[in-house]
Amino acid sequence: MPKLWNETIEEHRRAVRETVLETTAVLVTERGLRSVTMSKIAEESGIGRATLYKYFPDVESIMTAWHEEQIAGHLRVLAALRDGPGGAGERLRAVLEAYAFIQQRRHGHGPELGALLHQGEHVAGAEQHLHRFLRELLAEGAQSGDIRDDVSPDELATYCLHALAAAGALPSKAAVHRLVTVTVTGLGPATG
Amino acid sequence: MPKLWNETIEEHRRAVRETVLETTAVLVTERGLRSVTMSKIAEESGIGRATLYKYFPDVESIMTAWHEEQIAGHLRVLAALRDGPGGAGERLRAVLEAYAFIQQRRHGHGPELGALLHQGEHVAGAEQHLHRFLRELLAEGAQSGDIRDDVSPDELATYCLHALAAAGALPSKAAVHRLVTVTVTGLGPATG
Repeated sequence: MPKLWNETIEEHRRAVRETVLETTAVLVTERGLRSVTMSKIAEESGIGRATLYKYFPDVESIMTAWHEEQIAGHLRVLAALRDGPGGAGERLRAVLEAYAFIQQRRHGHGPELGALLHQGEHVAGAEQHLHRFLRELLAEGAQSGDIRDDVSPDELATYCLHALAAAGALPSKAAVHRLVTVTVTGLGPATG
Repeated sequence: MPKLWNETIEEHRRAVRETVLETTAVLVTERGLRSVTMSKIAEESGIGRATLYKYFPDVESIMTAWHEEQIAGHLRVLAALRDGPGGAGERLRAVLEAYAFIQQRRHGHGPELGALLHQGEHVAGAEQHLHRFLRELLAEGAQSGDIRDDVSPDELATYCLHALAAAGALPSKAAVHRLVTVTVTGLGPATG
């Protein structure tokens, strides 16, 4: 009985936390970071203000927690594509395309929220993780002959991440597709 | 006589301005932005403090003026390479390589100075200028068959500028050369 009770409490806490994260993300996206207060978040989440403060000290920390979950979700999607069917070249293209679309959406954060979210340590960690992740996939592609082997997987990963950041400046899904095609062409095995 | 006298004054002013810009750039690079005062700049430039204030109101404005001159110099170098000998493909490669080396050196500014310099309006103007500049060269290359024509010169210019920003993360000239090779491969005419 005590164990079940604890599990129920744990589940309840997770649910409250999720509700707070989602509610805050919606409010901040609609109104801007500076216009959202802890009181408003408590009200919209359907919990008391004192309860909210037991979970988070301020709006910034809620948005950082929300962003950490977003990034973790993105990394799970990219890992699933990497581990999917097909040759290294195909899987790499799928991963790069998904990453480019994430970059395009991310641009929608706006400069104020972007600056808050991207100063956190969790972002540097995620970027390193992603770089390592791509490096491994590129090394696999170089071995299978899908990817050029005259440049190290490490440098190619750096190239990919920068080139695909251009997606943030592109207006349409079709343009992002073309960007991925151009970027992948750069990775191709040396011809001639 | 008055005209000559005016020209001498004008020349003198330009010389003082240049000395102040160079002196400040060296001091800020050596000591960091926050450690450099107007008094120190006047002393090292060999002019009075009151005279210095006739030219610039503060250290930030001196660094912005210095940066504007740096950018103007870079754009002149890139324009000379564009207007040099060779086909569109060769000249594009020369321009992209020079731009990549500028990006690599620029990374040496450090985050504090980088943030100051890159918030200015002059940087947005220079970036637009560079984008237009590359777009024209890429359009020329598409016409001559050196560059792919299945993606617009506008989107290819956005790709180039982002991909080459990776040079800031690269440790050696050789690595920058390889980055340019990979980026240029992406621009190649569609094969197959």
